[in-house]
Formats: sequence, C-alpha cells, structure tokens
Amino acid sequence: MTRVINWPALSVSEQQAALARPKLADSAALGEQVRAIINTVRQQGDEALVAYSQQFDGLTANSLRLSVETKLAQLNKLLPERKAAIELAYDNIRKFHAAQLPRDIEVETSAGVMCQLRSRAIAAVGLYIPGGSAPLPSTVLMLGVPAQLAGCERIVLVTPPGKPEAGDIAPEILYAAELCGISEIYTIGGAQAIAALAYGTETIAKVDKIFGPGNRYVTEAKQQVSQDARGAQIDMPAGPSEVLVLADNSANPAFVAADLLSQAEHGPDSQVILVSDSTALIEAVQAEVASQLAQLPRKDIAAAALSHSRYILTADLAQAVAVTNAYAPEHLIVQTAADDELTAQFNSAASIFVGKWTPESAGDYASGTNHVLPTYGYSKTVSSLSLADFYRRFTVQTLTAQGMRNIGPAIVTLAEAESLDAHANAVRLRLAELNNVEG
Amino acid sequence: MTRVINWPALSVSEQQAALARPKLADSAALGEQVRAIINTVRQQGDEALVAYSQQFDGLTANSLRLSVETKLAQLNKLLPERKAAIELAYDNIRKFHAAQLPRDIEVETSAGVMCQLRSRAIAAVGLYIPGGSAPLPSTVLMLGVPAQLAGCERIVLVTPPGKPEAGDIAPEILYAAELCGISEIYTIGGAQAIAALAYGTETIAKVDKIFGPGNRYVTEAKQQVSQDARGAQIDMPAGPSEVLVLADNSANPAFVAADLLSQAEHGPDSQVILVSDSTALIEAVQAEVASQLAQLPRKDIAAAALSHSRYILTADLAQAVAVTNAYAPEHLIVQTAADDELTAQFNSAASIFVGKWTPESAGDYASGTNHVLPTYGYSKTVSSLSLADFYRRFTVQTLTAQGMRNIGPAIVTLAEAESLDAHANAVRLRLAELNNVEG
Repeated sequence: MTRVINWPALSVSEQQAALARPKLADSAALGEQVRAIINTVRQQGDEALVAYSQQFDGLTANSLRLSVETKLAQLNKLLPERKAAIELAYDNIRKFHAAQLPRDIEVETSAGVMCQLRSRAIAAVGLYIPGGSAPLPSTVLMLGVPAQLAGCERIVLVTPPGKPEAGDIAPEILYAAELCGISEIYTIGGAQAIAALAYGTETIAKVDKIFGPGNRYVTEAKQQVSQDARGAQIDMPAGPSEVLVLADNSANPAFVAADLLSQAEHGPDSQVILVSDSTALIEAVQAEVASQLAQLPRKDIAAAALSHSRYILTADLAQAVAVTNAYAPEHLIVQTAADDELTAQFNSAASIFVGKWTPESAGDYASGTNHVLPTYGYSKTVSSLSLADFYRRFTVQTLTAQGMRNIGPAIVTLAEAESLDAHANAVRLRLAELNNVEG
Repeated sequence: MTRVINWPALSVSEQQAALARPKLADSAALGEQVRAIINTVRQQGDEALVAYSQQFDGLTANSLRLSVETKLAQLNKLLPERKAAIELAYDNIRKFHAAQLPRDIEVETSAGVMCQLRSRAIAAVGLYIPGGSAPLPSTVLMLGVPAQLAGCERIVLVTPPGKPEAGDIAPEILYAAELCGISEIYTIGGAQAIAALAYGTETIAKVDKIFGPGNRYVTEAKQQVSQDARGAQIDMPAGPSEVLVLADNSANPAFVAADLLSQAEHGPDSQVILVSDSTALIEAVQAEVASQLAQLPRKDIAAAALSHSRYILTADLAQAVAVTNAYAPEHLIVQTAADDELTAQFNSAASIFVGKWTPESAGDYASGTNHVLPTYGYSKTVSSLSLADFYRRFTVQTLTAQGMRNIGPAIVTLAEAESLDAHANAVRLRLAELNNVEG
C-alpha cells in the first residue's frame, strides 16, 4: 500500500520533494538519433520516409497517402455504436470550441488613429495521431475540430501505418477525421513523420504548426523542429500525464479510486496524487484501488504508475488547496462538500473536473473541453489547447492626417529620447508636409 | 546604389533566395558561455549576480534593487515634454490593450454538461528592458501596460545599471514603469538577469514568464531557460527586426525613404525591403534614401543595414502582394492608391501600417498597437504580442447526474474503443450508482 504523506509534518524542502515531478530523461543518444532521422528526411524526402516506415512501422506499401478506396473500405467496418459515440463527442467538442471564435477588435485610440487586432487561421497545420496498441479517435477530434472551425486551409493528419498492413488505419480514426473534414492523411509516424510535416517532401507539403501527442521520438522531433525557424511551431511542451484528486470525507471512495486508476493506466510514468483532509477517505480509497486494480486489463501499467503515486493528508481543505496550487496539475478532480468554493481558489490547474459526476474520462472524450493540456507544471503559464492555438493575431493601424497631427509630436519626442533620429524623421517629414498644405 | 531585383525575371529558386533571411549565427561558444552564466547564478545567487554586473555592466553598488530614493531623484530630472509624450503613448497603448480583455466562456454542450474556458493572469512576469546607448521607455510601456491590465500579481522589471553609476536608470524608463504600476525594479542585465528571473536568487523571486528584447546573450539565455520546465516561459522567438514597404507610383518617395531608414537605423542586421510595381518610384526612393541618410546621426548603422537591403520590382500590385505574403514581414507598410484593397489580401505580416500618414514609428511608439512582434518569418504562426500573452487559459467542467446519464454511455464506448478500460470503469461505476438510485 502506498505510503501516506502527512503534509503538516513535513519541512518545506520535504514538501517540495513530495510534489516534485520525475526528472525527464535527457538522453543525448535520443537527441542524436532523432536529429539523424530529421536530416535524412530533409535530404532524401519520400525515399527516406518510406525506408524509415518500413524499418520502424512495418510499412509494406510504397504509398504514403491513404487512398480513398482504403478509407472507404475501413469506414465500412465501423460499428454503429462507436459511430454514434464519435458523433456525440464531435458535437460537444464543436459546441464548446465554436464559442471560442475570436473577435476582431478595432479601437480609435486618438482621433484619427485606428488600431485593429485581427485573427486569421494558421494556413497549414499537421495533426499527429499516435499509433500503438489502440487507436485514438478522441485525439483526432481534439485537434481536428478546432482546425476545422478555424478554417485552416490545409489540415494534414499523420498516423503510423496499421497492422497487419499499411492502410489498416482504424475506422474510428478515419471517421473522426471525416467529420472534421480531413482528407489529407498519410500513414507515417515517428520522428520521420514530424520531419516530413516540418520540412516537406515531394509528396507532403510542409505545414506551419504541428499538434498532437506522441512517444519520446515524436516529442523529441517536435522539440527539435520547433527550435528551427525553417521548421514548424508546435502546440505545447510535453510531459507525462497527471491527475490530482482533491477529495474530502464526503467523496465516494470507489469513484475516487476509479479516477486515480484511469490516469494510472495511461502509462508507467503517469503521475497520480490524492490530496485529502480525511484519513478515513484515504484508507477507503486505498482499499478500493487495490480491488479495482485487480480487474483491469492494463493492471501492470497501472500498478507501475501507482508505485510512485502519492496520498497526501492535509490539516484542512485550505491546505489541500495550497498543495494543489503548488503542484499545478494537468487534470484536477475535486470531490468535496465545498466544490464550488474550492474551484474558485484553484489558480494553476489546466483542466478542472468538478463534483462526483465528473470523472476525468468526461473531458478525455466527450464533455466538449479539449484533452490536450499542459502538464509537468507548465499549466502555470501554458494554456490548455483551444481554438486560439489555430490562429495567429496581427495588428493593423491607419492614421489619417488628423491622426498624424495628434500623435506625431509625441512620437518625435519619444524617438529623440531613444536617440532614434530616423524614426523621428519619418514623422517630421509628414508633419512638415501637413504644415505646407495648411500654410 | 542598391541593385534592383526584377522579380518576374527570376527563377523560383532565385525568388526564394531574394527573400531569404540571413542565417542566424549558431554559435556553440555563445551557448556555452551563457549556460555557464546561468548555472553560476543558479548556484551562487546574488553573489554571482553582483559579480557579473560589476564585470559586464560596471555596477558599482552592491544593491541590486532600485531604491525609492534613487527613483525619485531620477524622476525629478524628467523633461515635461517627454513626460507628456510618455503619457500620450501610455493612454493609447492602454486603450488598445484594454479592448482585448478576455471573456470567460460557458457552454452547456449536452443537457447537464457545463464546460467553461476561463482566463487568469500569469502570476509573476519579468520584463527585460535593454540598456545600451539609449533608454527604451517605449518597450517598458509595450510590456508593462498589458501586464498591468491583466493584473499580474508580480511585475518585475530588470534593466542594466546606467552609467556613470548604478541606479542611473533613465527617468523616461522609470516614469513609464511608474505609470504601469511597476515598483519591483532591479538594475541588472544580460544573461545573468534572465537567469535570476527564471530561477530566482536570495533577493529576486523567480517569475513564470519573461518578456522583452535584448542582445544576443539575452536572447540565448531566454531560449535556454525556456527549454527547462523549471525555468520560465518566454514571449516569442527572436530575430533581426524587419520592414517591407509596398508602394506604387502614387507614394511619396521621401516618406518611403524615411520609413526604410527608420528600420535601417535599428542595427546593421536590420532587414529593409521595398516592393513596388514602379521603376520610377524605386529610383526616386533610392535618391531620397541617399540624401536623407547623410543627415542621420546613426548613418553608419543605417548604411550597414542598407547594404543588404532589397528593392524588388514586380509586374503588378498582385505580384507585389504575393511577394509580401511569401516574405511574411514583421512590419509591413503599404502606401498605394489601393491600400484598403491590398490590406485585405495580406496574410502573414505581424503589424500592418496603412497609408501615407502611418509610418512604422507610429506603431513603435504611440498608435496603441504593440511593438513586440514576431520577426524572421515567425509571423506566419506566432502572434503579435497582445494582452492574451499575459494570461493562461484553463477549462472547468461540471456534469450533473443528468449530464452523466446523457454522455456516460458514449464515454464508455469510446474508452473501450481505445482499450482504456479504467477510463470506461470510472463512468460505469457512476452509471451503476445512478441506476441503483433510480431502481
């Protein structure tokens, strides 16, 4: 059974250690390996892409782009119940993100000085959908819906070729993509796919920004291409997924245990934390975790994650909130008798799940919020993925002659104060012309 | 006289070369030097900070924080005309940014499923104001006004100690900071200041995000701390400043020349481009540049920048727009007989200056728009600095029992499709409890 941490008994440095995240492996070997893959794709294009896909992903075809025939054949296999569930999730995600449409702003700051802030969709975006043991249609929706709503000119989806042969992309993924209006799909994955998106090949035109989760090769490749001005921007920094559940003795221990386990099954490096002011609740949850864990197909993964989970006992709920804010969790579940009051006090979580009927699974799939979230403490500064991430903002200003008369002298004064005489001169010339016209 | 590039006569690769930006020096030596400074500040704190400031910036005092006495003494030296100009700029910048206040969003996506997108100011921000030959009060306003409007809990300003002695921070900088409500000011600069902001020292508490321009040491240090989850986020990637002027034969050559020169005087690496469909306009501008240049105090810097400037002659204005969009300039000035029509077609500039009465200086100082802008082609994806950069967005969801009944079954179906059984189980348990209550 996991050790319970008695928070008030810890020193400040012990408290910091109790909330510390695992140090991410900073592998120079991984960096070099990924750099070599990226360089090879940049130099050899499609040829390298096919070779790497055969080597790493068992690609058997020579075609990188998913054909319409293959897509339709796969879509025919979709179970009606799954089709309906994907549609429900799509609808909710779309409703929530559609409410985020940016508004252009226009302000006349001084008479004759019009300033605008405009938003425009990023032209070409690449969506990375991991392969692996199970398809992830939910991630297609989380990335595809905002790209569709923003109206990006090109939405490119890449995902590793399925088994047993290339093109066996899961029908759930293809249907989610279909709803999002995505028709440009390539069956590639790994660092080579990120390289192709960032720099382009003969078949795949370069994109401007890359979104989506992936394994450590994908994460490293995203990091590398984002450091190159000729590469591509990325959605956000990556890290292991996390949940912090804040519960008091009014919570249902079975629900809390299920919520902890649903984070733990993501991977052995998942971070799972329970914070409570109630010893009874913590003990009941521990018993529930043990009994539910035994039933899970992915119990080995969950058990590995649970081995470094933390149960933190606080003196009261105010201290529990302080612990939560210091940790800055990716997912924060709150199940107490004072949920609304506490929710107003959280200042660093990326996504908050309020009350006994709101498990993390709701946001992972179908509540409508985005499940692409900053983790590893980044949520103190990095935003949860939203429609805004698919836009760029730029400004437009227009001065009339009157506007120049009104603010020109101040500009000259400031430019002189900054010893930028050419800046002043660009205004002096115009003020002189205005005086000539009037004179 | 700068060579004129006849755009239609170029091959595609020659066109790409004509718009290529200078390769940024990727100096391993600089990286190592900055890494050493950062590590020393992390290990030795204030002691290292003082030592570096004495070594690099001629700091003579031991005190890092600007005292109230010194500040008041300096403010007394502010010329009334400059005070008024700073106030005008402050007012306009504030009006434009206040119009950008984020609105929280709440959507009921399915009955009983409430989803919220909330914005909250980043708690602690650090503003870097470069020192050098002239003070930059305008940069204080561009960073300080949105930080003040967002309501960041801590706004920390750092700027290199002035000459001849520490604490001789220009009154213009201090007055701009005063208007923005900034009271925590440290007289430090360079990579050591970035390290102190990102990691904290005994005197300076760590911040969450660092804003502002700087020399190559500062830029490299910002880059390095932003790569560390324990460091700090930064505003945007850096690069040399740029202007592209698109003008036809209706433009005033003296104005165009002055606008090109005001970019050229920023530094020898400034990028200056004129695009026009008129040979006559290009020739007239070249003559004007030569005559105005001779009068400038910073003519050596401007001449160096002009030596790699480009005058591009296009077949028509449509082609001029295409060239502009391909280049994606930081600053885009348009002075033609069809300004409004063209402005609607620009899809990649960071800030657009429309018409003869709108020089770049207007946006640099006092129109109200922000002068912190993505450059080096980043404006295709990176936004101009705006109020949003001082906030983080997060989501909150709350399901009622009815909400769980409505979307729970779809969540179970999707979780099963993704082989995430614990995710499904967190919902199955809740649906079972609801059935029990009803049964």
